[in-house]
Amino acid sequence: MPTKNKPRGLELTAPRTMDALRDLVARLPAADGAMERAARARDAQLTKPPGSLGALEDIAAFLSSWQGAHPPRAEAVRVLVFAGNHGVVARGVSAFPAQVTAQMVANFAADGAAINQLCKSVGAALEVHALSLEAPTADFTEAPAMTEADFLEAVAIGMSKVSDGADLICVGEMGIGNTTSAAALCCALYGGAAEDWVGPGTGVDADGMSRKAAALRDAVALHGAALDDPLEALRRLGGRELAAIAGAVLAARLRRIPVLLDGYVACAAVAPLHSANPAALDHCLAAHRSAEPAHGRLLERLGKTPLLDLGMRLGEASGAALAVAIVKAAVAVHRGMATFAEAGVSGKDEG
Amino acid sequence: MPTKNKPRGLELTAPRTMDALRDLVARLPAADGAMERAARARDAQLTKPPGSLGALEDIAAFLSSWQGAHPPRAEAVRVLVFAGNHGVVARGVSAFPAQVTAQMVANFAADGAAINQLCKSVGAALEVHALSLEAPTADFTEAPAMTEADFLEAVAIGMSKVSDGADLICVGEMGIGNTTSAAALCCALYGGAAEDWVGPGTGVDADGMSRKAAALRDAVALHGAALDDPLEALRRLGGRELAAIAGAVLAARLRRIPVLLDGYVACAAVAPLHSANPAALDHCLAAHRSAEPAHGRLLERLGKTPLLDLGMRLGEASGAALAVAIVKAAVAVHRGMATFAEAGVSGKDEG
Repeated sequence: MPTKNKPRGLELTAPRTMDALRDLVARLPAADGAMERAARARDAQLTKPPGSLGALEDIAAFLSSWQGAHPPRAEAVRVLVFAGNHGVVARGVSAFPAQVTAQMVANFAADGAAINQLCKSVGAALEVHALSLEAPTADFTEAPAMTEADFLEAVAIGMSKVSDGADLICVGEMGIGNTTSAAALCCALYGGAAEDWVGPGTGVDADGMSRKAAALRDAVALHGAALDDPLEALRRLGGRELAAIAGAVLAARLRRIPVLLDGYVACAAVAPLHSANPAALDHCLAAHRSAEPAHGRLLERLGKTPLLDLGMRLGEASGAALAVAIVKAAVAVHRGMATFAEAGVSGKDEG
Repeated sequence: MPTKNKPRGLELTAPRTMDALRDLVARLPAADGAMERAARARDAQLTKPPGSLGALEDIAAFLSSWQGAHPPRAEAVRVLVFAGNHGVVARGVSAFPAQVTAQMVANFAADGAAINQLCKSVGAALEVHALSLEAPTADFTEAPAMTEADFLEAVAIGMSKVSDGADLICVGEMGIGNTTSAAALCCALYGGAAEDWVGPGTGVDADGMSRKAAALRDAVALHGAALDDPLEALRRLGGRELAAIAGAVLAARLRRIPVLLDGYVACAAVAPLHSANPAALDHCLAAHRSAEPAHGRLLERLGKTPLLDLGMRLGEASGAALAVAIVKAAVAVHRGMATFAEAGVSGKDEG
């Protein structure tokens, strides 16, 4: 018989102050160990050598533990793409002009982008949420990217887009200039040289990479010790789409919905949650390793092994959507396979 | 307008002698460079930074070149699982008894195995072909595994299971004891210590691994210089399911059908083709890297980078079937995305 723990019954009120947000991040619910054990117990009975499905076995147990349910489900999958614009684009950090953010949002609406085709291919529902594209964040080399009110509003929007009924969500982004924001966040959270965290993004040349690194150095000099607070770093260096991703990931945790994280920007958006609470991303899987060089380094800091490594670096939740196919397959084998007893197959060392 | 070259019009007659098989392997058709260029040209127009879809872009071009068609297709996907039994099992090389081969074939028929669920999950059609399970091959430490007639019949059966109309085939196997056969083939083709090519398979312990390595050494000593001929090595050390896989991969080449190779055994089955003609596997993608340790080493010898690396080691075409999701996604983005012109999105450096 399927078992599922009752909904958490938590009121999902978005935090109205930075302190309330810090408090929320500090007190996140834990996984359901009994459901994970139920998944492992069933897996041991399935008609295959123990361990022979590798990561698929772990994914089934992971989903059970975070859905609080056995068997796990991966039917209702929602891909959330948040879009925002960035003042730092004025410093020449992207190969594409800022208006491409809105043009690509229109392309999403017209079913023309990669993420549209990927969602159809894997059987996921796409939702795109544009956040005040007409009002870019401040250039974070000159001022905090967002006021506290703007930042908390973006977090709240992200939280509000996650509702009960999803088995899994994917989070991704669109925002010209946002790999510079991601790199600045990593530099603030983890230190190291600016060059360690900067990459070509959409395809800037060596001069563009130098401009990105210079922006990071200027930002660290400007914001100084304020960046020691991870959530404050997200407000000062992030963007509205990054804040919304962080909000969505928090809401998913509260609603017992596991998460597939997309690439460099999506992971950088939630890295402050991990810095504030090392358990904050335990309900998240890393979908893929981006070709953006710093992403692998960031995944190591987050303690995540990516499911895929296909040289992709598009954003738009494209890597996360592709990994949905792996998660669905993991659920399909876990739910659908016969046991040794059901199939009349001899077990190991029964010869 | 879609373009597709006419069918090759080749008569697919299975070779009746070892020499005829050698001749077939030596004269395989080449890829269609014009169709590959057509795919690359379209890719460059799609609404994404150049190169940002990584391996998905390469897969679309690969399919076009080997299907001889643009745009490529991945609708009709057939997963071929060949099953056979092995005399070498008498030497205690498997953790499971030999009757499990037939039991698992029954499990496939009853929809209970991992491959059944994976095929449904990715939208592929499963076909299982059992080859004389009641008559295991000879123990290759004592005699050639197959007579020439038996070997050529198994190759012919594999060839006969590939028919026009498939966009892509996956090849995999079921056969208790066949990782020992695979390891012996690799040892014959590439040299090195027996231990370099032996692994736990379905899960043997250290003693079982020692028995596998001893079988390899005995086989190399028995067959000697006869193993210098790669196709003769396949006859002497392989199994019926391995020979059928080799036949299916040859027939796919002749029918313009690209192939996804499964794990260690499936790759070892076609390694002799590659040794006989270094271009023989150019229409094949490596679906995944098995947790069976020698598979990574074998993929390096074949010059193949696997699409997935998820710690799987089940066989049954399970890794290949899972990778179908990646191939389908690659085709979906290639066919479905809008171009920059269609979407009115500004291109790179148009700021």
